[in-house]
Amino acid sequence: MQNNSQSRDVFYVSDGTAITCETLGHVVLGQFPFNANEKTFPFIESEEKLANLLKEIRTSYEKNGEKPLVFFSIVLPELKAMLLEAPAYCYDVIESMVQRVQNDTQQTPVPKLQRSRSVNKDSDTYFDRIAAIEYTLAHDDGITLKGLEKADIILLGVSRSGKTPTSLYMAMQFGLRVVNYPFIEEDIKRLRLLPEFEIHRHKLFGLTIDPARLTQIRENRLAGSEYASTEQCLAELSNVEALFRREAIPYINTSDLSVEEISTRILEKSGLRRRLQ
Amino acid sequence: MQNNSQSRDVFYVSDGTAITCETLGHVVLGQFPFNANEKTFPFIESEEKLANLLKEIRTSYEKNGEKPLVFFSIVLPELKAMLLEAPAYCYDVIESMVQRVQNDTQQTPVPKLQRSRSVNKDSDTYFDRIAAIEYTLAHDDGITLKGLEKADIILLGVSRSGKTPTSLYMAMQFGLRVVNYPFIEEDIKRLRLLPEFEIHRHKLFGLTIDPARLTQIRENRLAGSEYASTEQCLAELSNVEALFRREAIPYINTSDLSVEEISTRILEKSGLRRRLQ
Repeated sequence: MQNNSQSRDVFYVSDGTAITCETLGHVVLGQFPFNANEKTFPFIESEEKLANLLKEIRTSYEKNGEKPLVFFSIVLPELKAMLLEAPAYCYDVIESMVQRVQNDTQQTPVPKLQRSRSVNKDSDTYFDRIAAIEYTLAHDDGITLKGLEKADIILLGVSRSGKTPTSLYMAMQFGLRVVNYPFIEEDIKRLRLLPEFEIHRHKLFGLTIDPARLTQIRENRLAGSEYASTEQCLAELSNVEALFRREAIPYINTSDLSVEEISTRILEKSGLRRRLQ
Repeated sequence: MQNNSQSRDVFYVSDGTAITCETLGHVVLGQFPFNANEKTFPFIESEEKLANLLKEIRTSYEKNGEKPLVFFSIVLPELKAMLLEAPAYCYDVIESMVQRVQNDTQQTPVPKLQRSRSVNKDSDTYFDRIAAIEYTLAHDDGITLKGLEKADIILLGVSRSGKTPTSLYMAMQFGLRVVNYPFIEEDIKRLRLLPEFEIHRHKLFGLTIDPARLTQIRENRLAGSEYASTEQCLAELSNVEALFRREAIPYINTSDLSVEEISTRILEKSGLRRRLQ
């Protein structure tokens, strides 16, 4: 019988940020029943740095009596060869795919250090990203409703429905300029859209959440408050959802979604295109 | 001779957010000379959704006379089989690695839909991440220096050296509570650390940048200003770097780095451990 409750040491190793190794490793390991003790080693660009890592790998092997898993991406052949001699199961996260793309397209790959984002000084990508972050920060939580004409999207929802993290993620990852506006008690009683939003209707997108989840999140912030009470959460949510439906504002329930999933679903439902790749 | 200037249609396809497919695809394609026309199809969970995608793949194939590239991750066997029949070069981004891990560990994988982050209601991960984002927002750009004892790290640097995006990224991705503080003209003349920082010396980390790059970034914001002038940028940077050296504050130059790279290098140099995986 397999011992499914065991845990495994896992190393993410790269000559870059190791973000690709981590991302892929998480997905792969998510399909296995063991616990992963993960450790990341970015910028392994020299023999000295690699030597430290190899020491840790050997220690892990000797301590556990089994080889740790290593998800890696290293361009320099000498370093790669040294790593492959370690007492570990080593997985090159991109090599086999590069080979297949080479075969299929008949184009020759040029191995180069990974770059997580373009920082080309002549490209607009850097500035687009910074501008999106700044716009989004300036329009977080209803701080101002000026400049809505420059918004890519306007998120609406009750307090603690996930607007701020979602807005920042969309700005950072997709380069989008996001406004988010919280419904406060007055809005909820009046139950109508602010006139400022009228000419930007096509940019509106709603976030909602299950009442129990909202209560839990608000309790975490202000335990025992009226604000966190089941009644208050229920009332706010049912009014706001009614508004979304009446005004034909598309919306999603964020209860069981990560920030990445909320953001991706909004893009999908709104038809918005990301500005960064 | 190969036509290296050609471009290729590329599809990222997943039953989840497709973030893994995109991340990996970018790195793989970064090694090839052709331009990628990229399009992402997340949440391909039904035959209807897949049918729309297949239509686009066929259109691409007919228009270009060559197969597009598809980086995919789909769990449901029926959907996967349908996709593999498309006129495209299809790369399963995790399958071969799952098989190798299975062979090496002798553990049986349980295929499941990808989740980009845990949203387990009983886990603290969700709250840790939100708390880190909130703390970091509240301490952006020197807004307040209260609560520094809760900070994981305090970033120092001149205006436009990359503090805000780096802080937000570290909060979002690593769950760290980041303070960032801009040196303004007065600080630069006095050239000493604020007394508030004294007992938190071990948390201080500096960002610097090449004068030419800083001028370019500031010009983009306030063209022709004194603030953006080469002289001003040079003076600020040389004073601040002198301060970092004198006070033994570790620092990095952000000029040629993406936000991801800056964040990862800071983690590495500071020895900070991420709070989220």
